[in-house]
Amino acid sequence: MIDETHDPALTSWVCPEGHAEFPVQNLPFGVFSHAGGEKRAGVAIGDFVLDLAAAAHAGPLTGFDAGAVSSPCLNALFAWDCDTRRRLRQRLSALLSQPGRKSEVEPFLAPANRVTLHCPMAISDYTDFYAGIHHATNVGRLFRPDNPLLPNYKYVPIGYHGRASSVRASGAPVTRPSGQCKGEEPVPQFGPSGRLDFELELGIWIGAGNKLGASIPIGEARSHIAGFCLLNDWSARDLQAWEYQPLGPFLAKNFLTTISPWIVTAEALEPFRAAQAARPEGDPPPLDYLWDEQDQEKGAYAIDLDVHLVTPKMRAVGAAPQVITRTSSTYLYWTPAQLVAHHASNGCNLTTGDLLGTGTISGPERGTYGSLLEISAGGREPLALASGESRSFLEDGDEVLITGRAKRDGYVTIGFGDCRGVVVERRRDVGMDVLAPMLRAGHR
Amino acid sequence: MIDETHDPALTSWVCPEGHAEFPVQNLPFGVFSHAGGEKRAGVAIGDFVLDLAAAAHAGPLTGFDAGAVSSPCLNALFAWDCDTRRRLRQRLSALLSQPGRKSEVEPFLAPANRVTLHCPMAISDYTDFYAGIHHATNVGRLFRPDNPLLPNYKYVPIGYHGRASSVRASGAPVTRPSGQCKGEEPVPQFGPSGRLDFELELGIWIGAGNKLGASIPIGEARSHIAGFCLLNDWSARDLQAWEYQPLGPFLAKNFLTTISPWIVTAEALEPFRAAQAARPEGDPPPLDYLWDEQDQEKGAYAIDLDVHLVTPKMRAVGAAPQVITRTSSTYLYWTPAQLVAHHASNGCNLTTGDLLGTGTISGPERGTYGSLLEISAGGREPLALASGESRSFLEDGDEVLITGRAKRDGYVTIGFGDCRGVVVERRRDVGMDVLAPMLRAGHR
Repeated sequence: MIDETHDPALTSWVCPEGHAEFPVQNLPFGVFSHAGGEKRAGVAIGDFVLDLAAAAHAGPLTGFDAGAVSSPCLNALFAWDCDTRRRLRQRLSALLSQPGRKSEVEPFLAPANRVTLHCPMAISDYTDFYAGIHHATNVGRLFRPDNPLLPNYKYVPIGYHGRASSVRASGAPVTRPSGQCKGEEPVPQFGPSGRLDFELELGIWIGAGNKLGASIPIGEARSHIAGFCLLNDWSARDLQAWEYQPLGPFLAKNFLTTISPWIVTAEALEPFRAAQAARPEGDPPPLDYLWDEQDQEKGAYAIDLDVHLVTPKMRAVGAAPQVITRTSSTYLYWTPAQLVAHHASNGCNLTTGDLLGTGTISGPERGTYGSLLEISAGGREPLALASGESRSFLEDGDEVLITGRAKRDGYVTIGFGDCRGVVVERRRDVGMDVLAPMLRAGHR
Repeated sequence: MIDETHDPALTSWVCPEGHAEFPVQNLPFGVFSHAGGEKRAGVAIGDFVLDLAAAAHAGPLTGFDAGAVSSPCLNALFAWDCDTRRRLRQRLSALLSQPGRKSEVEPFLAPANRVTLHCPMAISDYTDFYAGIHHATNVGRLFRPDNPLLPNYKYVPIGYHGRASSVRASGAPVTRPSGQCKGEEPVPQFGPSGRLDFELELGIWIGAGNKLGASIPIGEARSHIAGFCLLNDWSARDLQAWEYQPLGPFLAKNFLTTISPWIVTAEALEPFRAAQAARPEGDPPPLDYLWDEQDQEKGAYAIDLDVHLVTPKMRAVGAAPQVITRTSSTYLYWTPAQLVAHHASNGCNLTTGDLLGTGTISGPERGTYGSLLEISAGGREPLALASGESRSFLEDGDEVLITGRAKRDGYVTIGFGDCRGVVVERRRDVGMDVLAPMLRAGHR
């Protein structure tokens, strides 16, 4: 529901000029810490973070369950019913937009560049889907030029389980994985991956869960979604090619998944809902359990997604990050509600804090691809960079940054914050003396 | 290390005649509750459960961290170093075998048939391997008669991530999943699975974890294993056949995984270690990161595994469960240490409470197969039962019970407890009036 919290005329006394990512219309939730301090729930506003627990205890947020916002993760908060969450959003919107509340709230603000952001939920299970139809087609074409999409693709929201323990907030080093790679030799070799890749995805955070043995009807699926983040499903293509049959990707993916640490709520994204446009005329309609008219008309999201690359050479000469991908979440073949309904359709129990990846989001042409595998056509057509370098896959020191913006005429644009990682060599002793300059460059 | 706790002459004053599964040489850890009570850590001895937390607070277990054994799950206990765990085992062995300690310990014993057993750990991530080479061959043959094993099988311990949220202790109802099935019609149909199956596996519980980006050398892998359980990886074959390409099984597996609730510790299983015998002469040797001489000589386990089936007709006439499979963990192609070392070889962080399934364990011939898919040759050769019935796949009301025994000459046999489930129709209101008689029959 679009309400007064989305009013484009609303401004915050924290950032009266507005903010590219975190204007008062956004109000994403996250978990942060001061140096050496404990993890705390927070809300992003402009270049500041509001300490939710302190505000709940000291006054401005009385009436809400202080225990839920005092936890070191947001699971308790997102287990709340949608109405309570919406009331909290309305209260925060009022506190941060009404100049008269400034003195009451200001003590609970910390500059964002002075805190560390963490994974916002204790992740119960992490599932990765494959809903980017152009990605599925592009990757399928590398293996099956004449028949890129498998027969199940337009019926089944294809997904698989990923690794929850290795999901990390933006900034975590991307340690190049080692593994078995099979080349021309008869015997595979174990060593560092030579085909390290990124994958541009959206992440979907689950709020309320369902009981084991029950399903989630498509018409109710939206109410189980807490919010969204950006997600980089780092992938080692050489490990993947050798290991993935017959049971799917495993060590090629589970060494790290990076997320943008703010949960941009479903409430904040209400104005950016869009018709499900990625299913071409003539495609089979979704089966009944995935079909909901309202979901088809308003269940997709219009989010612009960019991938930026910084190489060590670019960093050395102070060059700006190069945008290598501009794409959009409208290329997803299945809506978030369809992914949720499918996941629970067999009675599988989703739980608060589950993370679902959409799968890699690519558009139909060059410049819109969400992975280097597609950009470099499997390594055969290296990407030429403005720095004079080229890349088929990622090299040590390369930094990948994913950003996202939800935009719509008549509404204030909101962002997601950074989803960033720098590739580092395995086993090298990576101290902050090495990483800090790389990461500092990104604190915009 | 085999020590005095394995002495075959040792008896417990709790069960001086010994016990088929839980003699004093076993001492498995679990989590139990009294009716309406909270979850508590316990140890099985004969037909009784020792309340660890109460014993730690009241005296007999002083010197151990009472907090760790007072938790509603065993994660803190199994995060202990191996030495501390071994000392606890030695103390428990002494308390339960020395008649002079009876009066001190007896107040903390509860009859096992009066308590409910629960999942013993808060499961962080659940991974399922595919290490049963005969199973992989049998299933592969159904799809590729001339080339059943894929080229990676003898190099890569094939595995994939499963669903942690739907792992349940023995006795949980097996709600028949619905899903997309593709028959002869051009469009798949959504409905209850018609090819519901069991999969006989061992489960491996992880104790100490590793840091993200670090690996676990094969020589250290054993020290990361807390213990073992029986595991039934229920599978819907029709859902699986349609959904599994290209990313592996998903909804066909994640509706339920049943485990035997006692953690039979690595310490208890020391006498039953065996040479790795499932790799035939002429097969390629494991790559260096999976090769350890001691592991090859003593890293496998000799555990007899049986599958028992009870149909509603058998239950109605009071017939005994029919053993439909007798097999052995010696058919696993990879040792538990190899699975652990492989899982962490790319830097993936294992964490305390992770559960690894070995994959379905089958032998080379009929009568030793670990799934109905193999027993019925994909449904083409239904299994004839002594009751006059036949089964290709599971029907509503069918009960599957997996049992396991570790046996070796000169040592006392130890067991795992039950791993049991009854198939129930989806959405039927299954109250305990229906389930209780089915489950009670199994409380031996």
